[in-house]
Amino acid sequence: MTKSASTLNHIAADADVSPSTVSKVLNGRSGVAPETRERVERALRSHGYSPPGERRLQPFVELVFERVESAFATEIIRGVQRAAASRGMSVVLTESGDRHTPGPEWLDGVVQRRPSGVVLVFSNLPADSKKGLALRGIPFVVLDPAGDPAPDVPSVGSANWSGGVLAARHLLELGHRDIAVIGGRHDMMCSRARVAGFRSELEGAAVPLDGALVWGDFHREDGVRLGLELLRREGRPTAIFAGNDLMALGVLEAARMLGLSVPHDVSVVGYDDLEVARWSGPPLTTVRQPLAEMGEQAALLALDARADRPLRAARVDLATSLVVRESTAPPRR
Amino acid sequence: MTKSASTLNHIAADADVSPSTVSKVLNGRSGVAPETRERVERALRSHGYSPPGERRLQPFVELVFERVESAFATEIIRGVQRAAASRGMSVVLTESGDRHTPGPEWLDGVVQRRPSGVVLVFSNLPADSKKGLALRGIPFVVLDPAGDPAPDVPSVGSANWSGGVLAARHLLELGHRDIAVIGGRHDMMCSRARVAGFRSELEGAAVPLDGALVWGDFHREDGVRLGLELLRREGRPTAIFAGNDLMALGVLEAARMLGLSVPHDVSVVGYDDLEVARWSGPPLTTVRQPLAEMGEQAALLALDARADRPLRAARVDLATSLVVRESTAPPRR
Repeated sequence: MTKSASTLNHIAADADVSPSTVSKVLNGRSGVAPETRERVERALRSHGYSPPGERRLQPFVELVFERVESAFATEIIRGVQRAAASRGMSVVLTESGDRHTPGPEWLDGVVQRRPSGVVLVFSNLPADSKKGLALRGIPFVVLDPAGDPAPDVPSVGSANWSGGVLAARHLLELGHRDIAVIGGRHDMMCSRARVAGFRSELEGAAVPLDGALVWGDFHREDGVRLGLELLRREGRPTAIFAGNDLMALGVLEAARMLGLSVPHDVSVVGYDDLEVARWSGPPLTTVRQPLAEMGEQAALLALDARADRPLRAARVDLATSLVVRESTAPPRR
Repeated sequence: MTKSASTLNHIAADADVSPSTVSKVLNGRSGVAPETRERVERALRSHGYSPPGERRLQPFVELVFERVESAFATEIIRGVQRAAASRGMSVVLTESGDRHTPGPEWLDGVVQRRPSGVVLVFSNLPADSKKGLALRGIPFVVLDPAGDPAPDVPSVGSANWSGGVLAARHLLELGHRDIAVIGGRHDMMCSRARVAGFRSELEGAAVPLDGALVWGDFHREDGVRLGLELLRREGRPTAIFAGNDLMALGVLEAARMLGLSVPHDVSVVGYDDLEVARWSGPPLTTVRQPLAEMGEQAALLALDARADRPLRAARVDLATSLVVRESTAPPRR
């Protein structure tokens, strides 16, 4: 029996596990219960071994999307890229697949790759994975535009409620009083917050929303369908606020189908300021969610975490702003 | 003097260079002339050292953009991601900055990172860098939607000329005879090929293009400006083919500004099939450039290159196809 095999056996005996479990922990593989892993790591240290969590992190940021698609991805990538470059690092992109939750294979991969920081977009990390990353000293931050973070995880989002206020203030200042709202998914914090901010500002001006609030699902088709419904009503609204840019594009399409001119017959305000908002006909007035800055901030938070100054489970919300283009104007009397 | 310092001195003497040059080569740094590097690498081998080019490649694909922006990026990333995942690899993203040519710092970085393959988007690689990557056994492929590859570099693009043919055939079949074209940048192969294919199909049907060909610069604004010009002409065209989707969106906007209905007063065909083509008002009929497949193909070509079967400087052009949506219809008589 070689010396190292004998050491392995000693460690296994100390930790009360099989030698193959020790080897799993040493190689950063999954399939070991957290308590067992901790016991093995203590035994490893007492024998002068470094558990994988204490080996050097590699100079890159790992950026995890459920899927790299949607107009969101490009901006987020640019922001994370910017943060990594400022530290002389590169960016590794991974996809967690068709679920909000990266699986155990992903965790294995991360542990092998040992990034200096992980940014998870739109993700819920199961408790096991959180513990796994924390144990290995890999700092992670959730980039969460949906505004619904787990309470024990550091995350970056944007100010949805204030964004809604900005949209309402703009329409009120233009003189609109007959205003309708197409909210995004009703079960998502971000859409509820946007609508709540909008409504609160209207209430401050004593302008009722009444029956003119409907809910969609963030797709362009929802904007077409609900836009048609609102614009066909007797006493048609003079302005519509949509909970994201895609639904606002749908409202533009609904107006076009009805032969209504935007902004002369109806003003439209979107939310997000995706690239496409500049390209629509007419270009869209919208609330800007600073996705690139959010990506940058999330990456920097992760990279600046250190053993002596670990990440707190804080929430950072970056400011939103109003971008006025050509889809809004004073109402025609 | 330690043994290794003495070995370094021997190697330096053998290669007739300074020890610091040997150390540069060993660490894969730049600033060494190619002939000198080769001499040092021979000397290294004769002393039993592995030059960096012979060390193991790491399990990831490096994807290099000039800038991660434009609607192109997301699709390309998805394709490269798919190829990498099929080999159990991840993707590293880097930006070469505001130039078409990645600089020497980039080459240093790649040599340190040692990707299994490199995909360069829209890039011209200087001769030095090509040689540098080749020397180190790192295979690279240029993803080149612009259709203008250097002759000695493997590259992936798409069939621009045939794409133009498809667009023309569609409009002819609908019955259009008064057709105008807004070409993309006249100095780019891809735009010239699209227009040439389009024109060739019209000529086959004895439909003249005459004065109805103008050139833009691929921006939405060009589509607005040139679209207004064409649509204000006496004997207005019944259909306009634009050299990319952004210019086609501009034509939609021009029609909207003139109170013309698309497709009833004028049909519009774009090129690229970016995501935004589905979202415009009306959704755009366009020629699809398979960007994700192009990214996938480029990554697989690079990954499948091996020392015993190196990449040839081949050009692969993937097929384009027509996507019919709502911006085209028969002309009104």
